[in-house]
Amino acid sequence: MPPDDRAATPRLDAQMVFLMEADRLKSVSRATRIHDGSRFENSAEHSWHIALFALVLGEHAEDEIDTDRVIRMLLLHDLVEIDAGDAPVFGAVDAAAVEAAEQAAAERLFGMLPADQGAALRAIWEEFEANETPEARFAKSLDRFQPPNLNLAAGGGSWTDYGVTQDVFEAKMAPKIARGAPKLWHWLRPRVAAFFSAAR
Amino acid sequence: MPPDDRAATPRLDAQMVFLMEADRLKSVSRATRIHDGSRFENSAEHSWHIALFALVLGEHAEDEIDTDRVIRMLLLHDLVEIDAGDAPVFGAVDAAAVEAAEQAAAERLFGMLPADQGAALRAIWEEFEANETPEARFAKSLDRFQPPNLNLAAGGGSWTDYGVTQDVFEAKMAPKIARGAPKLWHWLRPRVAAFFSAAR
Repeated sequence: MPPDDRAATPRLDAQMVFLMEADRLKSVSRATRIHDGSRFENSAEHSWHIALFALVLGEHAEDEIDTDRVIRMLLLHDLVEIDAGDAPVFGAVDAAAVEAAEQAAAERLFGMLPADQGAALRAIWEEFEANETPEARFAKSLDRFQPPNLNLAAGGGSWTDYGVTQDVFEAKMAPKIARGAPKLWHWLRPRVAAFFSAAR
Repeated sequence: MPPDDRAATPRLDAQMVFLMEADRLKSVSRATRIHDGSRFENSAEHSWHIALFALVLGEHAEDEIDTDRVIRMLLLHDLVEIDAGDAPVFGAVDAAAVEAAEQAAAERLFGMLPADQGAALRAIWEEFEANETPEARFAKSLDRFQPPNLNLAAGGGSWTDYGVTQDVFEAKMAPKIARGAPKLWHWLRPRVAAFFSAAR
């Protein structure tokens, strides 16, 4: 088949460039460890895990939600980390610098797609970031709900690494998790309290 | 909060046991390497990647499909590997033994969920395995379409490891990819041919 036949599908070509670039998310390391504490989680497998959280826990959202839209959001939510890296929630970060880096990353990455599709997927990501719609609020809450569960499984994980106390955890995470998923926060809180209490 | 308060949510408790067990999929190694060839891909990040393929490439399915159902299918499709492991497509495997192990795994894993939800999610997995509905056929084709693209990016990958030739690749993969996504197979084929041709 001559090479010009291969160039006859510019739309699919662009989509494949995007999808292969997306593979780099597998090399972005997070502050959280996987369940057995053996290694850090990467942002690709994290995205899979919380999409599964959405599929299973959608019924516990505070408002009526379109679970499939939440799942799409979570599949896309960390792509910008390919350029901007992961900003650990308990680390010291310059929020404005992170946001600028993520916007530039969104421009580059979603810009690889055909214009109509790039705009549509970027809109889903922007909706997640804005944290206003019921779907975005639930998605954001799941993104914050999963790591403490991994920390509990791993016997401390990023809490130990960052010297996090129960007070710091509650102050930082309660608003983030409870905003879109108060029921999940209510479930998690006594478990985390028991962990910190036993660790004292 | 007393311990009995924590036991007052049996449905959510069961869902969380399932979701934390699912974390083990991050430790299941596949035969395919990630884009830069630096390490083997795991089944959790693979599941994320092909769910993203579905989100972006749904328009190229052979039949009218519900893309969100395909995505749900792909999020769940490899969970049974937690018990049964990954069976490399170019390796020598006992298909009946793999199927028996996967059925036992499905029984155990989906059995962790509340009965109604476990049955619903297992039905999606069984639909994927049966490879008959338009959604399952497209999902199966994506599952087979992604690895050769990673092999091309990595300069050979599992083809090199398993001594795969173009003839073997075509015989084994053409039917699998073309069944649900002939357009993707048409796009991929000359690229793979060019790789094997250059490697000769």
